[in-house]
Amino acid sequence: MQSSLSVSDSDGSSFAPLVVLELAEDTEAETITWLLNRIKDKQQNGGAELLVEQLEVIGQNEQKRSPKIFLVGSTWKRLLIGAEDVGLFKEFHDGTMRGFTYANRESFKEFQGDGDDFLSIAECQYIIKHELDTLRAKGESHVPGYAKVKLYPGKSVIRRLQSKAILLQYFPLHDKEELKRLSVSWYRKIKLSFQPLDDIRHYFGEGLALYFGFLEYFTFALVPMALIGIPYYLFAWEDYDKYVLFAVFNLVWSTVFLEVWKRCSAQLAYGWGTLSRKKAFEEPRPGFHGALGFNPVTGREEPVYPNTKRQLKIYLVSVPFVILCLYLSLYVMMIYFDMEYWALSIYNEDPNLWTSVLLFIPSIIYAVVIEIMNLLYRYAAEFLTGWENHRLESSFQNHLVLKVLVFNFINCFASLFYIAFVMQDMVLLRQSLATLLITSQILNQIMEAFLPYWLQRRRNKKVHKRVRRLLGDRELPLVEQVQLEGDMYTYLGTFDDYLEQFLLFGYVSLFSCVYPLSALLVVLNNVTEVYSDAFKMCKVFKRPFSEPASDIGVWQLAFETMSAIAVVTNCALIALSPQVKAYFPEGETQLILTVVAVEHVILAFKFILAFIIPDVPKHIQIKLAKLEFESLEALKKKSRALGRKCWRPQRFQRLISDAE
Amino acid sequence: MQSSLSVSDSDGSSFAPLVVLELAEDTEAETITWLLNRIKDKQQNGGAELLVEQLEVIGQNEQKRSPKIFLVGSTWKRLLIGAEDVGLFKEFHDGTMRGFTYANRESFKEFQGDGDDFLSIAECQYIIKHELDTLRAKGESHVPGYAKVKLYPGKSVIRRLQSKAILLQYFPLHDKEELKRLSVSWYRKIKLSFQPLDDIRHYFGEGLALYFGFLEYFTFALVPMALIGIPYYLFAWEDYDKYVLFAVFNLVWSTVFLEVWKRCSAQLAYGWGTLSRKKAFEEPRPGFHGALGFNPVTGREEPVYPNTKRQLKIYLVSVPFVILCLYLSLYVMMIYFDMEYWALSIYNEDPNLWTSVLLFIPSIIYAVVIEIMNLLYRYAAEFLTGWENHRLESSFQNHLVLKVLVFNFINCFASLFYIAFVMQDMVLLRQSLATLLITSQILNQIMEAFLPYWLQRRRNKKVHKRVRRLLGDRELPLVEQVQLEGDMYTYLGTFDDYLEQFLLFGYVSLFSCVYPLSALLVVLNNVTEVYSDAFKMCKVFKRPFSEPASDIGVWQLAFETMSAIAVVTNCALIALSPQVKAYFPEGETQLILTVVAVEHVILAFKFILAFIIPDVPKHIQIKLAKLEFESLEALKKKSRALGRKCWRPQRFQRLISDAE
Repeated sequence: MQSSLSVSDSDGSSFAPLVVLELAEDTEAETITWLLNRIKDKQQNGGAELLVEQLEVIGQNEQKRSPKIFLVGSTWKRLLIGAEDVGLFKEFHDGTMRGFTYANRESFKEFQGDGDDFLSIAECQYIIKHELDTLRAKGESHVPGYAKVKLYPGKSVIRRLQSKAILLQYFPLHDKEELKRLSVSWYRKIKLSFQPLDDIRHYFGEGLALYFGFLEYFTFALVPMALIGIPYYLFAWEDYDKYVLFAVFNLVWSTVFLEVWKRCSAQLAYGWGTLSRKKAFEEPRPGFHGALGFNPVTGREEPVYPNTKRQLKIYLVSVPFVILCLYLSLYVMMIYFDMEYWALSIYNEDPNLWTSVLLFIPSIIYAVVIEIMNLLYRYAAEFLTGWENHRLESSFQNHLVLKVLVFNFINCFASLFYIAFVMQDMVLLRQSLATLLITSQILNQIMEAFLPYWLQRRRNKKVHKRVRRLLGDRELPLVEQVQLEGDMYTYLGTFDDYLEQFLLFGYVSLFSCVYPLSALLVVLNNVTEVYSDAFKMCKVFKRPFSEPASDIGVWQLAFETMSAIAVVTNCALIALSPQVKAYFPEGETQLILTVVAVEHVILAFKFILAFIIPDVPKHIQIKLAKLEFESLEALKKKSRALGRKCWRPQRFQRLISDAE
Repeated sequence: MQSSLSVSDSDGSSFAPLVVLELAEDTEAETITWLLNRIKDKQQNGGAELLVEQLEVIGQNEQKRSPKIFLVGSTWKRLLIGAEDVGLFKEFHDGTMRGFTYANRESFKEFQGDGDDFLSIAECQYIIKHELDTLRAKGESHVPGYAKVKLYPGKSVIRRLQSKAILLQYFPLHDKEELKRLSVSWYRKIKLSFQPLDDIRHYFGEGLALYFGFLEYFTFALVPMALIGIPYYLFAWEDYDKYVLFAVFNLVWSTVFLEVWKRCSAQLAYGWGTLSRKKAFEEPRPGFHGALGFNPVTGREEPVYPNTKRQLKIYLVSVPFVILCLYLSLYVMMIYFDMEYWALSIYNEDPNLWTSVLLFIPSIIYAVVIEIMNLLYRYAAEFLTGWENHRLESSFQNHLVLKVLVFNFINCFASLFYIAFVMQDMVLLRQSLATLLITSQILNQIMEAFLPYWLQRRRNKKVHKRVRRLLGDRELPLVEQVQLEGDMYTYLGTFDDYLEQFLLFGYVSLFSCVYPLSALLVVLNNVTEVYSDAFKMCKVFKRPFSEPASDIGVWQLAFETMSAIAVVTNCALIALSPQVKAYFPEGETQLILTVVAVEHVILAFKFILAFIIPDVPKHIQIKLAKLEFESLEALKKKSRALGRKCWRPQRFQRLISDAE
C-alpha cells in the first residue's frame, strides 16, 4: 500500500488517510469525543484500534455548509490482523489460494519485508470499513449527547449513527496516482485489447471487476452473432424466411454462453481469492427497525420484526401494487398501438417522406415513456421494499430485484410479444424492436454517464473556486481532494448496470432472429458502455468500497431464465415463419405439435447441459480438493500426535463449545 | 452398547465381537499374522488399534468349505475416539446437534457414566468398518505371503485384500435381542401406526431408515389420491370425461409431494445428526485399477486411469450399447402390439369368456418380459459401468443410476406413451396400465422377499444340521450365528428398492388419470412392501453396515424429473379428452395452443415453487445458523484474547499449513 497523502496523528506521528467519515455539522462535541475514543480504543476493550484525525479546513465558519470531516487510517499490523478477521484469501507460496493468517504471513507469496505492498488500498479500505461496521455498543444505552438515539449491547455503532443521520456518509478516498494509471490502461486510449480486470479488481474490488468481466465476456460472445447478422442485412435476406437458421443459432448460443460464463467467473473468482471465501455473518441492514426482542440465532437482544407482518405487507400491498403497475404498463402499450395505427393511417392516406418519418414517432415516444416508467417504478420498488422492513440486506436485494425484473421485463417486452404472437406482424416487430433498442441505448448512455459528468463538472468548478478562495495560495491537496470527493455522486452498486445488460440480452435473445442487426447494435452499445462505465467509475462517482463477490449472484439466474424464455419465443417464431409452414401442408396441428415437441426437447437439453457442465473448471476443482484434503490430513496428524493421551486434540469443534 | 455375546482375547480379557472378517481358506499364515498385527497395532504406529480374535470352529477339517473367520471388536475408549474420527454428530446438552469430540464427551446429552450406551451397535460397527477401511499400507511393497499382491504407501489394506479375493467378505453381526425387539415393533404385529424409524436408524443406520421413511411418506401421500380414485371406479365415471379433474389434482400433488418430502427428510437427517455432517474424503473404489501415478489432490502415489480413455469407453461402447438396448426394448414393444392385435382379432371373431381372458394375456406376457429385460439389463449395466473403471464409488453410482433409469423408463413406459399419444386408445391404455402395474407388483414381491427367504430357509436347515453335527450337544451360539449369517445373502443397498418406487411413482403420476385405481393399487403394494422389505432386512440378508445419509440423494432428482414429465403427459391427456375438446369447437389449433400455454405456466410454476419453498424447515435453519454463529464468535473471542501479542490465534487455517 502506498498512499500519496498523509495526515498527522495527535501524537505527531503521521498516517495515510484511507476512509473519510463525514459527521453532521451540529453533532455534539460529546458524541465526537466518544466516537473517536471508541474508534481508537484497543480491540481488547471492544474498540476498533484504528487511527483517526479531524480534517482541519481553515476558515470553516465562513461557509454555510461545513460538515465535520474525519480521516481514518490504520497501522500496518492492524490491517494485517484485520485481513485475517475479514477472511481474506491470498496466494500461498505453493500457488494455491488460502485464508490469510497473521501468524503465517511469511508463507504467502507476495508478502515481502514488512509486507507493505501485500494489501491493495482497496483491501485496506475494505478492512477499515469492516472494523468500523463491527464496532459495537458495549454498555451504552444511548449515543452520548443524544439521549433519544438508543443503543443496545452488540448494536453496530456506525449503523445507528448512519440511520439517525449523525453520520452523513463514509467513503474511501481515491488514490490519484493509481487512478491515473488505471484510467490510462482502461479507457484513456482506444485500443483493441481486454480490460485490465486485475487492475480494476485491485482498485475497485471483486464485485465491480466481475461486472466489467461479464460486460466484456457478453460483448465478445455477441460478436459471432453480430457477424452472422450483417449478411442478413446486406443481402436483404429479410423476407422472414431465412430466420429459422438464425433462431437455431440463437438457441444454442444463449445456452452455451451462460454455462461458459459460470466457468470463467469461477476462474476469475478463484484467482481473486473469493471463490472459497466464506460469507461473513450478516448484520441487520441499517434501515431495519422493530421492537426489541431476542434473536433466536445469536441470543442477543436486538430489534425483531414479526415475519407475518412483513408477509402481510408483501401480499396485501406490494403484490397488488406491482400488478397495478403491470396493468398500467399494458395500458400504455395499448395507447402506443393506437398511436401506431393512427400514424399508419396518415401514412397510407398520403405516403411521403414526412409521413414515413412519422411512422417511427410512436415507437420513439413509447421507448422514452418506457424508460421513464422504468425509472419511476424503480423508485417506487425501492421505497416499497424498504417499507417491507427486511432484516438482511440480501433479503432486501432479492425482493427488490424480483420486483424490478418482473416489471422491466413486461414493460420492455410486452409490446414485442403482442406484435409477434397476437398481431403476427413481422414487419412491425422489426421496426418496433429496432426503435426500442436504439432509443433505449441512446437514453441510457446519456442518463448514465454524460449527464452526471456534466453536472459534476459544474459542481467541481464551484468547489474549486471555493477552496481556492479559502486557502489562498497555500497548497493543501488533501483538503481539496476530500471536499471534491465528498461532493461527488455515490455509486449505488452494479444493479442498474446489470439490469441494462439483462434487457439488452432480452432484446438479442428473444426476438433478434427477425432483426439480425440487433446483436451488432448491442455490441456497439457495449463497446461504448465499457468506456462510459469506466469513465463514470473513475471520474463521476465517489470511490465505492470494494465488495467481495465470487459470482454475479442473482443475475446468473435472471439471465438463465431469460434464455429459457428465449427458447419458447424462438420456437414460436420459427413456427410462424412461412418457410416452416410450407413444410406442413396437411394443416397447422401437425406443425404446432412438432414445434412444441422440439421445444420440449431443447428445454430438456438445456437443463441436462446445465447439469452436466461443471460450474468450476477441473484444474480449480483439483486445487480446492487439495486444500480440503490437506486440512483433513492436518487434523488427523494432530489428532494422532496428541490422541493417545487423555487430552484430545484441539479441534475446530472444540472452539465452538469453549465459547459458552 | 450391549452385546449378548463375547469372545476371549488372547490376553484372556473378553470383548464383544462386532464385525466378522472372512479370509479365504488357503490364506498364508504369514499374511494372517501380518494382518492381525496391523489391526491390533497402536494408532501411533499406523495400526487400527482394534481387538481381533480367530473364531475356533471345532472339527473344521471335516468340511470342504472352511474359510478362516475372525471376529473384530474394540475397547470402549477406542470407539469413542473413532466416533470423533468419523465425524459423528450427537445431541449436545443444549439440544443442538454437534460433532462429537472425545474431549467434550461429558457435554453430550446421552453420555452417562462411562457412556456405555452412548453409541448404538450400528454406530460401533460403522466406526470399526471405517477404521479397518482406513488401515493403510506403510512401507510394505506387497502383502506378506503374496508377492504379486502389490501395495503402495497409503493404499487401504482391506480394499486390496478384498479386490484380490484374500478377504472374502466382512460384515457386522446381528444382535439377536435387539433384532427381535425391532422386528416386533416393525412388522411382527399388524397395526395402524408409523414405522419405528428411529429404531430402524438405530439398528440399520440412516441410509436405510431414510428409505423406509420415504416409503412410508410416499404411501401416505398416495392415500388422498387413492381415495379420490375409488368413486371414479365405483360410479363408473370412466367415460374418460371426468379425468380432467383428476389430472389437475395429479399435477398439484406430484409437485407438492416432493417439496414437502425434502423438508421431512431434512428434519429426520437433522435429528439423526447427518444433515450438517461433512462427507469424508472419498477413497478409490475397490475395483478401480490403473498404472501407478500421482494423485493431483493428495500428491500420493496411487493408480491413475486416464480420463480420456474412460470417456472413450463411455461414448464408444456404453452409449451405443444403451441405445441398442433401447432399440431392442422398442422392438419387443412392437411385438407386444402385434400380439395385442392378434388377441383382439380372435376376440372379435368369437367373443366369449375364454377369448376375453385371452385379451389380457399379451399384456401379462409383456409385463413379465419387461421385468426380465430390466433384470438382464441391470447386470449388463453394472458390468459396463465397472468396466468404465470409475475412480470413485459416487461416480460409479451416478453412471449406473443414469444407465438403469433411462432404460427402465423407456422399457416400462414406452408402450403406454405409444398407446396414449400415437394410438390415442384410452381403453387399451387403461387395460395395459392395469396389467403392467399389477403384474410387476406381484413379480416384484416374489422376487424380492419370498424367493430369497425360501432359498435361505433351505440353506439354513443345512447349516443348522452341519453345525449341530459338528458340535454335538455343546452350546456354542456364537459359532452357529456367525456361520448362519455368513451364509446369508448380502444386501446390495437401497438401489433396487428406490428403483421400484420410482417406477411405481411413474405409473401413478404419468397416466393414473385414465386409471384412477392405480394409486390404490400402489398403496396396497406399498403396505405389503413395508412388511416384506422389513422382513427381508431382518431375516433374509446379512446385516448391512450402516450408511450415513442426509437425503435420498440422486433419487430426489429422479423423482423430480418424473414429476416434470408427468406435467407434460397429464396436460396432453387433458387435451385428448373429449370433454375438453368440446370447449374448442373452432378447431384443434386453438385447443393445442391453450394446452401448451397452460403446460408452460404449470412448469414455470413448479420451478418457482421448488425455488421458493426452503429445503430445510425454518426451526432447523435457525439451529444450524446458531451453531455457525457460535463457532464464529468463539474464533473471535479466542483471537481477541490472544490477538494482541505477536503470537496469533491458532486457527483452523493454521492447522492446514502446519501439516506441510
